[in-house]
Amino acid sequence: MNAAMTLVEVTRGPAVESRHAGAVAVVDAEGAVVFSLGDVTRPTFARSSVKALQALPLVESGAAELFGLSDVELALTCASHGGEPEHVATAAGVLARLGLDADALECGAHWPLNDAAARALAASGAGPSALHNNCSGKHAGFLCLACALEVDPRGYVAPDHRVQREVTAALEGTMAARLDDAATGVDGCGVPTYALPLATIARGFARFGSGVGLEPVRAGAARRLMEAAWSAPFQIAGSGRFDTEAMQLLAGAVFVKVGAEGVHGAALPELGLGIALKIEDGASRASEAAMAATLLRMLKPAGEAGDFLARRAERPLRNWAGVEVGVVRATAALSG
Amino acid sequence: MNAAMTLVEVTRGPAVESRHAGAVAVVDAEGAVVFSLGDVTRPTFARSSVKALQALPLVESGAAELFGLSDVELALTCASHGGEPEHVATAAGVLARLGLDADALECGAHWPLNDAAARALAASGAGPSALHNNCSGKHAGFLCLACALEVDPRGYVAPDHRVQREVTAALEGTMAARLDDAATGVDGCGVPTYALPLATIARGFARFGSGVGLEPVRAGAARRLMEAAWSAPFQIAGSGRFDTEAMQLLAGAVFVKVGAEGVHGAALPELGLGIALKIEDGASRASEAAMAATLLRMLKPAGEAGDFLARRAERPLRNWAGVEVGVVRATAALSG
Repeated sequence: MNAAMTLVEVTRGPAVESRHAGAVAVVDAEGAVVFSLGDVTRPTFARSSVKALQALPLVESGAAELFGLSDVELALTCASHGGEPEHVATAAGVLARLGLDADALECGAHWPLNDAAARALAASGAGPSALHNNCSGKHAGFLCLACALEVDPRGYVAPDHRVQREVTAALEGTMAARLDDAATGVDGCGVPTYALPLATIARGFARFGSGVGLEPVRAGAARRLMEAAWSAPFQIAGSGRFDTEAMQLLAGAVFVKVGAEGVHGAALPELGLGIALKIEDGASRASEAAMAATLLRMLKPAGEAGDFLARRAERPLRNWAGVEVGVVRATAALSG
Repeated sequence: MNAAMTLVEVTRGPAVESRHAGAVAVVDAEGAVVFSLGDVTRPTFARSSVKALQALPLVESGAAELFGLSDVELALTCASHGGEPEHVATAAGVLARLGLDADALECGAHWPLNDAAARALAASGAGPSALHNNCSGKHAGFLCLACALEVDPRGYVAPDHRVQREVTAALEGTMAARLDDAATGVDGCGVPTYALPLATIARGFARFGSGVGLEPVRAGAARRLMEAAWSAPFQIAGSGRFDTEAMQLLAGAVFVKVGAEGVHGAALPELGLGIALKIEDGASRASEAAMAATLLRMLKPAGEAGDFLARRAERPLRNWAGVEVGVVRATAALSG
């Protein structure tokens, strides 16, 4: 086990210019490690990779049904979206259903992650609101849960608020892990995030995807959220984004979700497996290539899906004039 | 010597979330290594860290004098600028002096690296031109050189064009290294970039800064470029950028220049030393923290300059709501 194995390298001309170390775990619902590279026992903040797990109480509690959330809306509750107009409209629609608006969101405002959307917003003369925050869908879901539970939604990001207690319990149940001993940080959007071994996070995805080991209501909620994402993959991320395109091509076979700081998680329901990986330095260009290579290795899909994953596992790097100057590629250790 | 020593870590709450490995070399003009961490012999693409060395022929040839380049204009020829209006105007002014415009630039167009400038440009209804490219000043300098040499400027980015032959010779002379055996790539802006040991790049900065070992005309040109940068540090990078603020506070003591993919170089003329560092994964948040810590270690400046470097060597990480959730900090190995 090497804690700092190179998973992705970046070439320029004939040479390797940069290297991304990391670890990856592929685990079944019982926790058996099917494939791994690097140290999969080191605590790793799961960040937004587990947004779908954080959305489980929204469905399990009946809140999603109570407020009539559509597939598009449910998919957004699991999203790290680009702040494109469709994402913003979906989040605003959920809040309106609750009689709330952007002021109720406690995630903070930032310019859309999608560059074109940010420039279009600037060109319109407006600035960003909390609706543009990549987590606005998750937070709209938290507000639905608070309203359904008939608790004061204010302060819903705090660890001791009823909403986060429900969310933490769902994470614990799905990952079959205790979180009270885990290192706890504050996520980019204000909610708690926990540091757990990659193998534990991967097991959580295996259970989430297969339902194995989960109570029937939780297994059903997980299935409902995956089906929403497969039905509306644009909501999960956005234009040109890996998670969106992967689920467009591999609906049913893969639920996949990026997190900040180089974390990426996936459930492979048909194989009963979960994947969690972390790029040591937090780079998303590397976590994406590593996830593409891992999905290729585990699924070996034919046709368009296979071509897509291969293109993302080894991606040309072009300079400003459009000339190909190198590649970002998963290393042989990962590609097999 | 550990090829992958952690130079910078990113914390969240009580835990380290991400780690950046790398290497740093501090070398004198004779090539003696004064301080190093990691493997400083591994070939490393110098990228834009050596833009000031690439600008030497512009001054040595008399082209800068012929076209009456000001300090502001000369500083821009060494810059990786943010595409802010002042940068764009300066580059356009140099081209106008030559009877040329943005069409003569072969660096390609991209949106300003400075987010506010990009949004303001979008809000104006315009798009980016090659003048907004962070390398437009360097390329304007190449065009000055071509015009002064009375050669056809077209194709000035090619390795066998007279301009790049002059530039390559200046790099070789300053670094006291042969480049014909070095791995060669195409830089982001289209010109050749060479992979050299960090210790060799650092020695180049030591010679550039001190003039030791250089012919008088080259030593004078180096001095002229550094003084231009100290006189107009905004041109070198831009609003809030490390290189700009460091040279505002440490004019005379430090010439410092970032490059893509986690490279950072500096000359310390008063100490006769050069610094070159590379973050393995290419992250600029880490190369900046590592350079700040290295400058702090070597210079130990008092007052505002010391405070600035300390703040950049350990920088708070805030979430979207403005809450401090962790830090980006140079490790003890570097901070000493």
